[in-house]
Amino acid sequence: MNTKPTLFTSFSPALLHLYDLSNSIVVIIDILRATSTIATALYNGAKSVIPVDSVSRCIELGKQIEGVTAGERDGKIAEGLQNGNSPFEYTREFIAGKTLVFTTTNGTRLLQMALDRGATEIVTGAFSNLSVVCDHLMVMKKNVILACAAWKDRINMEDSLFAGAVIHEVGRYFSINCDSSHIATAMYKQAKKDLFDFMKANEASHYHRLIGFGLEKDIRYCLTPDLANVLPQYDNGKLTI
Amino acid sequence: MNTKPTLFTSFSPALLHLYDLSNSIVVIIDILRATSTIATALYNGAKSVIPVDSVSRCIELGKQIEGVTAGERDGKIAEGLQNGNSPFEYTREFIAGKTLVFTTTNGTRLLQMALDRGATEIVTGAFSNLSVVCDHLMVMKKNVILACAAWKDRINMEDSLFAGAVIHEVGRYFSINCDSSHIATAMYKQAKKDLFDFMKANEASHYHRLIGFGLEKDIRYCLTPDLANVLPQYDNGKLTI
Repeated sequence: MNTKPTLFTSFSPALLHLYDLSNSIVVIIDILRATSTIATALYNGAKSVIPVDSVSRCIELGKQIEGVTAGERDGKIAEGLQNGNSPFEYTREFIAGKTLVFTTTNGTRLLQMALDRGATEIVTGAFSNLSVVCDHLMVMKKNVILACAAWKDRINMEDSLFAGAVIHEVGRYFSINCDSSHIATAMYKQAKKDLFDFMKANEASHYHRLIGFGLEKDIRYCLTPDLANVLPQYDNGKLTI
Repeated sequence: MNTKPTLFTSFSPALLHLYDLSNSIVVIIDILRATSTIATALYNGAKSVIPVDSVSRCIELGKQIEGVTAGERDGKIAEGLQNGNSPFEYTREFIAGKTLVFTTTNGTRLLQMALDRGATEIVTGAFSNLSVVCDHLMVMKKNVILACAAWKDRINMEDSLFAGAVIHEVGRYFSINCDSSHIATAMYKQAKKDLFDFMKANEASHYHRLIGFGLEKDIRYCLTPDLANVLPQYDNGKLTI
């Protein structure tokens, strides 16, 4: 008898409807850079991160609760917000004790979508907190959906690689009848020696986009495991650890 | 100046809306088994293959034109149809000179969807006709969409591998800003020594499904290059060579 919980990978928000979120832990993945930054801000002492799906809501809520407003649209700080979504902006000196109200093109939108689709247990995952995410999934023994934020519904390499990294670590504890998961794992095995080089050699679209913005440092940070190894869990509108 | 045409890979019909089909050659990919069988039937002398999107339409049209009705639903011959979608059913002795009216769970549905989305140039691709598809794309110098049929919108390994095989051959002639394409290519490079073994080792879902039906022979055939190296082109409701 196979009593292992199931694990599926959704490579794009446009595929999320194929999976049953209600009975699963949903891991929201937006490596460049939302979920890397969420882990970093909480690791550095942010009280909570409140993901919102629009810039106007971000501004409004930021005023109400005297939070730090942050986020991007198309890779740049959105107009009217105070901060961007580089993890380097969220040092302990800056963010400790504060609430971050956060909106991004893909990651926070996906989180909202998961809620709308009945998800009740949501965590965020990034290489920054790879180990703690894996430990959580192993301990909980529940079904898992690895939900990639992608880029405007187009599949991206780094979110898929992270799904592969998680499965590489914990896959044996799950029943996986999901080719996206197997594709991610096969790619990760090839990439794991040097994720940055793999992204560069294989012409990942976000590698080019962020290098174009002079953000090599961000890419390297976001591909490094366990630099902010805390588990952001969503509850009642907030991500906390 | 970059004057190369573009190439994108759509891993699932649920992602097809992200791409501009109207100005592109759309390659419909359903390795297990629709597009492998289409190539085989035409290679063996079928007059044409008429893809239809429902079993009832298949039966109706089959009667009208005295064609061979064929197709599957959920991997088995659909009720009311004469034949299934194994390439081995379409020997020269059986199919030469006949018209095949064909419906499948994913492949013919995707073709119809591509038409609805404005595609004007459609060919079908499979390992069975890999070389001629690649030659065609090289010669035509037009934008390309590699459209995977997947399985009820869930991404599958073999269609993705075929996309990787095409890009491995002709990618240098295209401008590819598409991580799905890069993911497919990275996977194909790892798999190409032995596609069957790769599918088995990486637990591809269709490998398991078809092995369960006793169809290892079909899988091996459908993963072998150039056994039916003709180019099915869609025009006016029919695929012909």
